[in-house]
Amino acid sequence: MLIIGELINTSRKAIKEAVEKRDAEYIQKIALDQVKGGANYIDVNCGTMLDNEVECMAWLVNTIQEVVQTPLCIDSPNPEALDAGLKLCKYSQPMINSISDEKERWAKVLPMVLKYKAKIVALCMDDTGMPNTAEDRMSVVDSLHGKLTNAGVPEKDIYFDPLVKPISTVETAGVEVLETIKQIKEKYPEVHFTCGLSNVSFGLPNRAVLNRFFVVQTMVLGMDGYILNPTDKNMMGAILASQALLGKDSYCMSYLSAHRKGLYE
Amino acid sequence: MLIIGELINTSRKAIKEAVEKRDAEYIQKIALDQVKGGANYIDVNCGTMLDNEVECMAWLVNTIQEVVQTPLCIDSPNPEALDAGLKLCKYSQPMINSISDEKERWAKVLPMVLKYKAKIVALCMDDTGMPNTAEDRMSVVDSLHGKLTNAGVPEKDIYFDPLVKPISTVETAGVEVLETIKQIKEKYPEVHFTCGLSNVSFGLPNRAVLNRFFVVQTMVLGMDGYILNPTDKNMMGAILASQALLGKDSYCMSYLSAHRKGLYE
Repeated sequence: MLIIGELINTSRKAIKEAVEKRDAEYIQKIALDQVKGGANYIDVNCGTMLDNEVECMAWLVNTIQEVVQTPLCIDSPNPEALDAGLKLCKYSQPMINSISDEKERWAKVLPMVLKYKAKIVALCMDDTGMPNTAEDRMSVVDSLHGKLTNAGVPEKDIYFDPLVKPISTVETAGVEVLETIKQIKEKYPEVHFTCGLSNVSFGLPNRAVLNRFFVVQTMVLGMDGYILNPTDKNMMGAILASQALLGKDSYCMSYLSAHRKGLYE
Repeated sequence: MLIIGELINTSRKAIKEAVEKRDAEYIQKIALDQVKGGANYIDVNCGTMLDNEVECMAWLVNTIQEVVQTPLCIDSPNPEALDAGLKLCKYSQPMINSISDEKERWAKVLPMVLKYKAKIVALCMDDTGMPNTAEDRMSVVDSLHGKLTNAGVPEKDIYFDPLVKPISTVETAGVEVLETIKQIKEKYPEVHFTCGLSNVSFGLPNRAVLNRFFVVQTMVLGMDGYILNPTDKNMMGAILASQALLGKDSYCMSYLSAHRKGLYE
């Protein structure tokens, strides 16, 4: 299970302020908290720093790596920012968030994937916009899978993001994602998944609960990665409980150990 | 979604005492609470009253039907108790809990299914004992499906119970059930499901949470009925949230309405 910690993102006010002040201590605390919570990758996104994204990215990558050896997920559509972050990554194989089948994004991000032999998050989106149905998504998946593998990217390094949309606007938004996961898993058993899923509950009450249940639902069909807040004990507990129920936790050891440590509420 | 309220069962101490004292008011309160919580069938089980199960069953059925018009699920392996309960059922089509492919149980229960044209819970079990794998379960399912439909029971009246066992003893206990549901759904799309699922978490901490997640997992694969405590707001909330996420709740109306009424915590 791949857990990408999402908290180091300058679209969050506290992170933006910390980056502006070069408050290394705060950034390092957030990095450590995420690793302690169970993150096995840390996303780094400073896309809102329009004037100096490249410089901020370099500072963030160095700052984080001073305290954790967790590999990083460099998150930007800007190839200069990607390059600045990726060239500093010291631990394990870095990840890029993200490529898509949009012509411009594809052309800008692919060279970085190849240069750094990075794992790559591949969004099910092209220049026609956000997909609605599983069929729409699969045509993008087929295209991206073909182009990435032709370019030499191993299937195991491809992480498809099915793009989750709110059920409050289209009631089939959840099932179309579930169907997409099922079809990707059948057609390309070696690839992986990741997604941010909080969109699913947009506009509804009890969002955290809906988000947790959607994680549980997607895991049944083979989803094996998420970008989320790993300090959310209930969410991490849902993932551990699901893995135990899915027979992916020998003797329920991880579940029990998390319970004893109080990770799971 | 079929919710069978499980609370009126003399294996529960308070129910046993109420039945012994013929405390109609208590039984009626439990019946009403379950209907208010969302039960669309009420299970009636007085199997622990070894000396007078037949008389107790008749009293319970009459007592419950004084206050609710919800159809009943008459729960006994004893054909006399089934007959006593079923002949008093006034509202809609009754249900029998349960038949199996055990020779003696089959021979005793089938005549009651046919006499009352009842819906029937069919346990995936035969005289070789509790099944372990999905394959074991499917061989019982195939046998029961054949025999029940040959006897004239419509597929829509058959509710397969895949028999849930604890993941704490066999770590694949959950996935084998999930696989069984998937295979039944593919092979016999017209039949329904029900199960008691609390066994899944036996021997582990946070049982209520594991039970809820297991409901969410099974619903993804087409499970459409449960025997449970409908006054458990968290569990009923999990079912409503899952239905919304699965696109089975137009405009999320049931989810929102339950939230407003405080059913969903």
